[in-house]
Amino acid sequence: MIGIGILGYGTVGSGVYEVLKVNKDIIKRKTGEEIKVKKVLDLRSFPGDNIESILTHNFEDILNDDSINIIAEVMGGIEPAFTYSKLAIEKGKSVVTSNKALVAEKGPELLKLAEKYNVNYLFEASCGGTIPIIRPLNTSLTSDDVQKIEGILNGTTNFILTKMTEEGRDFEDVLKEAQKLGYAEADPTADVEGHDSCRKIAILSSVAFGATVNYKDIHTEGITKITSTDIQYAKKLNCVIKLIAESEKTPLGIAARVVPCLIKSSHPLATVNNAYNAIFVKGNMSGETMYYGSGAGKLPTAAAVVGDIIDIVKMKGLYVPIDWNVNENMPVLSPEKSEIKAFIRIGFENKENAEKAVFDLFGNVDFTSLEGLNNEFAFITGQETEKSVIDKVNKLKNASAVKEIFNVIHVEE
Amino acid sequence: MIGIGILGYGTVGSGVYEVLKVNKDIIKRKTGEEIKVKKVLDLRSFPGDNIESILTHNFEDILNDDSINIIAEVMGGIEPAFTYSKLAIEKGKSVVTSNKALVAEKGPELLKLAEKYNVNYLFEASCGGTIPIIRPLNTSLTSDDVQKIEGILNGTTNFILTKMTEEGRDFEDVLKEAQKLGYAEADPTADVEGHDSCRKIAILSSVAFGATVNYKDIHTEGITKITSTDIQYAKKLNCVIKLIAESEKTPLGIAARVVPCLIKSSHPLATVNNAYNAIFVKGNMSGETMYYGSGAGKLPTAAAVVGDIIDIVKMKGLYVPIDWNVNENMPVLSPEKSEIKAFIRIGFENKENAEKAVFDLFGNVDFTSLEGLNNEFAFITGQETEKSVIDKVNKLKNASAVKEIFNVIHVEE
Repeated sequence: MIGIGILGYGTVGSGVYEVLKVNKDIIKRKTGEEIKVKKVLDLRSFPGDNIESILTHNFEDILNDDSINIIAEVMGGIEPAFTYSKLAIEKGKSVVTSNKALVAEKGPELLKLAEKYNVNYLFEASCGGTIPIIRPLNTSLTSDDVQKIEGILNGTTNFILTKMTEEGRDFEDVLKEAQKLGYAEADPTADVEGHDSCRKIAILSSVAFGATVNYKDIHTEGITKITSTDIQYAKKLNCVIKLIAESEKTPLGIAARVVPCLIKSSHPLATVNNAYNAIFVKGNMSGETMYYGSGAGKLPTAAAVVGDIIDIVKMKGLYVPIDWNVNENMPVLSPEKSEIKAFIRIGFENKENAEKAVFDLFGNVDFTSLEGLNNEFAFITGQETEKSVIDKVNKLKNASAVKEIFNVIHVEE
Repeated sequence: MIGIGILGYGTVGSGVYEVLKVNKDIIKRKTGEEIKVKKVLDLRSFPGDNIESILTHNFEDILNDDSINIIAEVMGGIEPAFTYSKLAIEKGKSVVTSNKALVAEKGPELLKLAEKYNVNYLFEASCGGTIPIIRPLNTSLTSDDVQKIEGILNGTTNFILTKMTEEGRDFEDVLKEAQKLGYAEADPTADVEGHDSCRKIAILSSVAFGATVNYKDIHTEGITKITSTDIQYAKKLNCVIKLIAESEKTPLGIAARVVPCLIKSSHPLATVNNAYNAIFVKGNMSGETMYYGSGAGKLPTAAAVVGDIIDIVKMKGLYVPIDWNVNENMPVLSPEKSEIKAFIRIGFENKENAEKAVFDLFGNVDFTSLEGLNNEFAFITGQETEKSVIDKVNKLKNASAVKEIFNVIHVEE
């Protein structure tokens, strides 16, 4: 029998308990072992719940229980999750987690420790919810030199953008609905400002490229400035707006960013809607592969956590290294150095003069306008460095014919 | 150092050699081992080729070379691939393969043997080309009770259907182009008649559901009867036609088939074009996940073969069981028992009477017709058993107002 300790009985933690219970027989068939939750740590009480008799408020109870072989750390946040994970590994217990904040911040340290103590630290559920992506990168796409990863990595923002697109509603309005439905948290900052996607693309880049990509180096914008008018322009241009996390290996370093993007409606990511996530990987041998599924949610995320547990059980205690050299950092290019196209939306005093000001700076671009909005237009720049776009936008702001720059949004080719 | 023997120096075999050569350093970093091709078996000679000095025409040279730890069987067909694989396993060598015909026919026997000799028999490249799907089913979606698998599993037919759809051309015409471009073989039967997809869905079902699904039990139709007129009707109905392989667990057994299908243009599989493949998996915990990539091609397929080699190297000789109980067969439902919707295209003598005959048999359906085709129409049936549809179509054939049944094609909801 394999004993499990669950740290945190929130959405994911209770999901882990449920998956192990509902699919008990199937899991036993696949592993040849009975996998049993021995203790659950949470500060709260759960009177009447299934786990009442195995609940503890004291981590030591789990740490010192020799019948617990694997810990599922699903509490989120850096502390005490980090300390608990460290102590567990030092006790010779493998740890699996859905905690992207911790993996992005302390992954290298915990992986180094896991290697030292010959246990596994697995984190499939930290990126893309239920989507198998860490393990395919680490065990399937291994013959590849991975060159690029790009995806929709946050369910909350994708749900909000989908609703804004389908129903023509504004950000704040849809955010409130998302909070009511449980798709967004009371404090939605981590999701809507892109911090969550940023940590995920940092983790995916580290596994795909083989050395640490620091999330703090990744330029990150959220979706709070996207308006329903921007989305109407996107529609007119046969595009949708998605929060895209991308990371590419270049000769100078990693070009990585999290930004809202206009993407063509025919792009495979354009049809990834609601709380679904999708991830593209480009390798020098396999070409493009794509992975799609629920990016969040109790059971889908818990299924990925339990998948890691089962993998450890099937490997019978073998330490399997992850291709993430924790002693090496990969430099991330400042966004100014990489080339982009941008959608720029402008309010003007005088149309002809504003057009002239744009032509002078950006050359021969096409203008788009929306019916009923008579004092603004938008255009898409050619390919140039982000720094150049920013400089030109600043100049445009000072042009007398230009009243306001409403928005500057990346355009994905 | 890990020694590799390659059986067959055709498209995939030469790709395996190339992947191991081009990505040598990356593979060494990921595995900590140098992986070297020691011998290549082929009946032909390759004067001037890289492998000339390690080419052999005699399998014994590979079998008896103790420095060869892993065999890549990429020759295709049942024999001598089966005998060679068996002998290799009995010599304690792990075998990896892209040979779907062999895995579908002899997989259970070879897996049983591999377990006995404590080596691995892996076949990621046998389904979906480069797409990681066998390993995700076997190592990621393990906490799930997989309920359904559905996908586009053959690159040749998908290429042909895409061209027919985009260019309005006929099957025979596009097939010739596909043969010229190397997308179809001189004898295209295995692809265009659906046999290849049938073997692949049998293998995927066996891994997903945990026991042998015999490919011979799976109802299989190809795309040779699909005409450009059928595709025009599909377009008018806001659908495309794809060769779909599907397999679903039901209380009575596995409902599996390979058939051309009308699917809605908004269905995620509708935008999978050319030689790309995509596979949907539905689990009771993870929900729907999808996997997409090159379904064929030298380097993409070889990348999957080498991925299996690397997995074996990283597992350091550990035998990792695949969840495919080779001693158990899962019954496949006769297609007559499962419910379908069908698109039926009819040539008539008298429109009004033909419509009446259809109404009498199929109830209140909507008729669709194409401009310029004045003596035919089409309709989509309600949901009913396949047997009932077949019986009604036979009755329709005998109706005096009906001249001809041009086609009956499945409709995927």
